[in-house]
Amino acid sequence: MTEDIETRISRVAFDDDGLAPAIIQQFDTGEVLMLGWMDAEALRRTLTSGRVTFWSRSRQEYWRKGDTSGHAQYVKGARLDCDGDALLITVDQVGAACHTGDRTCFDADDLTPAVGER
Amino acid sequence: MTEDIETRISRVAFDDDGLAPAIIQQFDTGEVLMLGWMDAEALRRTLTSGRVTFWSRSRQEYWRKGDTSGHAQYVKGARLDCDGDALLITVDQVGAACHTGDRTCFDADDLTPAVGER
Repeated sequence: MTEDIETRISRVAFDDDGLAPAIIQQFDTGEVLMLGWMDAEALRRTLTSGRVTFWSRSRQEYWRKGDTSGHAQYVKGARLDCDGDALLITVDQVGAACHTGDRTCFDADDLTPAVGER
Repeated sequence: MTEDIETRISRVAFDDDGLAPAIIQQFDTGEVLMLGWMDAEALRRTLTSGRVTFWSRSRQEYWRKGDTSGHAQYVKGARLDCDGDALLITVDQVGAACHTGDRTCFDADDLTPAVGER
């Protein structure tokens, strides 16, 4: 039997602001699309509705990916890390994940590391 | 010509604690291995040394993945997101990424979302 939803949410170690970072990954290609923030309620909505919901730190409100852009994220899976303080949400992303129109939020800015020797 | 390293680091919008979340992804399989935290110096070491370095919030010290476990992360790429406040580091992971011995830090805890209809 699947654990109660509140039991699952209670395992998350939210930070002092009540938030945890959520990595959003395309379920089939493995692309990392973006990183957002969730509080307990955003996670609850994500786990129960099939659509990814975030908490906006800048606007101090919930937002559901795609409601303004049409580029929804449909939930495929959700995992909690070993410390309980980071989330990995696998999704099926409709269209661009980034508000700039890029496929992912990590497409535009290459920090060009020096690649070390083995 | 590649931008100066300090110019690249200066584009990162670190939080009030001087930190940014860094998603660590296996470069070839796309697996998300873990999420760690970097300050400017940890990012500088990551971009210049070829090995991933984090700031430990619990121990308040730098740590280089693999120095105690032997399971090093060799840097393959580094990207900054559209808001400038999250990092995506692609790596070649030797052995397990998780201190528990799991391949990734997200292997153990499934939050079992309800998968919505399209």
